[in-house]
Amino acid sequence: MTQATQVRLKKRADGVPQDDVWETTHDASVEPGEGEIAVDVQYVSVDPAMRGWIVDTPSYLPPVQIGEVMRAGGLGTVTASRADGFNVGDTVRGITGVQSHYVGSAQGFSVARPDLAPARKFLAGLGMPGMTAYFGLLDVGAPKDGDTVLVSGAGGAVGSVVGQIAKIKGCRVVGIAGGSDKCDAVVNRYGFDACIDYKNESVGKAIRSQCPNGVDVYFDNVGGPTLDAALSNIAMHARIVLCGAISQYNVMSADGMTGPRNYMQLLVKRARMEGFVVIDYADRYADAIAEMAGWMNEGKLILDEHVVDGLESFPEALRMLFDGRNTGKLMVKVV
Amino acid sequence: MTQATQVRLKKRADGVPQDDVWETTHDASVEPGEGEIAVDVQYVSVDPAMRGWIVDTPSYLPPVQIGEVMRAGGLGTVTASRADGFNVGDTVRGITGVQSHYVGSAQGFSVARPDLAPARKFLAGLGMPGMTAYFGLLDVGAPKDGDTVLVSGAGGAVGSVVGQIAKIKGCRVVGIAGGSDKCDAVVNRYGFDACIDYKNESVGKAIRSQCPNGVDVYFDNVGGPTLDAALSNIAMHARIVLCGAISQYNVMSADGMTGPRNYMQLLVKRARMEGFVVIDYADRYADAIAEMAGWMNEGKLILDEHVVDGLESFPEALRMLFDGRNTGKLMVKVV
Repeated sequence: MTQATQVRLKKRADGVPQDDVWETTHDASVEPGEGEIAVDVQYVSVDPAMRGWIVDTPSYLPPVQIGEVMRAGGLGTVTASRADGFNVGDTVRGITGVQSHYVGSAQGFSVARPDLAPARKFLAGLGMPGMTAYFGLLDVGAPKDGDTVLVSGAGGAVGSVVGQIAKIKGCRVVGIAGGSDKCDAVVNRYGFDACIDYKNESVGKAIRSQCPNGVDVYFDNVGGPTLDAALSNIAMHARIVLCGAISQYNVMSADGMTGPRNYMQLLVKRARMEGFVVIDYADRYADAIAEMAGWMNEGKLILDEHVVDGLESFPEALRMLFDGRNTGKLMVKVV
Repeated sequence: MTQATQVRLKKRADGVPQDDVWETTHDASVEPGEGEIAVDVQYVSVDPAMRGWIVDTPSYLPPVQIGEVMRAGGLGTVTASRADGFNVGDTVRGITGVQSHYVGSAQGFSVARPDLAPARKFLAGLGMPGMTAYFGLLDVGAPKDGDTVLVSGAGGAVGSVVGQIAKIKGCRVVGIAGGSDKCDAVVNRYGFDACIDYKNESVGKAIRSQCPNGVDVYFDNVGGPTLDAALSNIAMHARIVLCGAISQYNVMSADGMTGPRNYMQLLVKRARMEGFVVIDYADRYADAIAEMAGWMNEGKLILDEHVVDGLESFPEALRMLFDGRNTGKLMVKVV
């Protein structure tokens, strides 16, 4: 048996989490109890939402406590099972934490379906980010054929999928991403109609010019001034889907969070801004996965991963998200 | 014929509109043309929305231009008619402007129904503010029996009606108003379950204590820090109805508008914030008026007016709104 490794929260972060926020331990694994499984973890998901989980404020999930293994989605192989529906050798996805070996409740775990897609997709485009894109866009955003859909974080794991689904649904799709390489991928790889480079152009002006009839659906991953720029350009009865606010995550604790100054545009345009949390849709994941895998296998949907090697890379990988260095769903490979 | 009087916009306001923003003229009336009516105006409505109409920025209505008669709802008697459905002697309501004599299109005017309520109610509780309360609460807020409904500006023309309708619908209703006299009226005259005095207590703490299960519907007339305090206390799947932002109207032009810092609570609580403009519901006004008049005549709904005498009082009356000196629907009587 290889040495077990855990990445634990050592202290609360101030701003962008530095290396000293984490500590690595090598506690031996225990045997699974009744209703539990043991999993050899192969991949750990790295997500913007993690920044919110390590703040000492109750949110849609309880905060990760000091000394606890960092919460994370993971993918691995069942090595022992005392839970119905899980067999040794199954590839499973669930909240494994940032560690090499998971032992605990099988609740919330699901078995990957190799008939639909390669296993790793179930942590990526067919996992949380994919589900977030699917339900956020289709249920909360409710795009109609011909709508203009604007997506921030368009090169990311969620945004790239949002835009591709919106294209499948017959929308004009405009992305916002940072840098010409990302914008190039957004248009030429993910098939958006246009991409605004927030590092090199005025986002407000560019939205106005790319969305001359206004924005019907804005899928917001970033918050901050980009949200304001979008609000200034919404169409009548627009829907703003609040998925994240990555530009604000590292200042939230400092009471420095900036609210959307232009929120009264919601009144002028009879529009709504709505938040959602993907876990509420768990009972519909299976159908969404089947539909998305279908699109993927027909070549209509590209689901990219960005893999970083080694659990010791987790702290740096998390920082990559906040300066936008990842391309596709970011995950750490346990090696 | 008495001398005709018009209050016109003389210049754009900076902050709270002072007297020099307005000028009074005495232009003689003309005869109505085809499709037009002449109206002796008796009452002119004074509304918070007016602050937005005199800003030089397109909104849900075009800005009032310099030199134009100030836009306002009014109530008066038809003295000449060349429009179908309007007869001399009818009491009508419509956008008369701040003036003693209206001559112009009959479009948007409606004849008051003396069988339902005294005429003045059709400019007040059965007019724009009443319609705003009715459709904003019931259509946008969608309260359910047993919900907790929080209302800012609770002593005002809209807020007092929102709370009373919410009580009729079986909700627990908490108001926010300024000063002990207003709070006393909110509870003892309008029948709210409780009222928070924002001038004398911490709004956030008071909401927490008065709404222990969280706020299901927040009807926002004020914006600013009150909106943030409400956001901090919303229940799961809450609805925030954006009706106004009176605390912000006089700073909007200065780019100083404050957005809701806590807007990400919409995500945590899977909630939505939605704006509306009452004129979109015009084709349903008649039914709403009939229902509200019924409640009024059954003694379940109190619709108050606050009348100030003389068109020359209009500039001061408008300022009364912004420091909350009115009790009930504010209007100027043309004398």
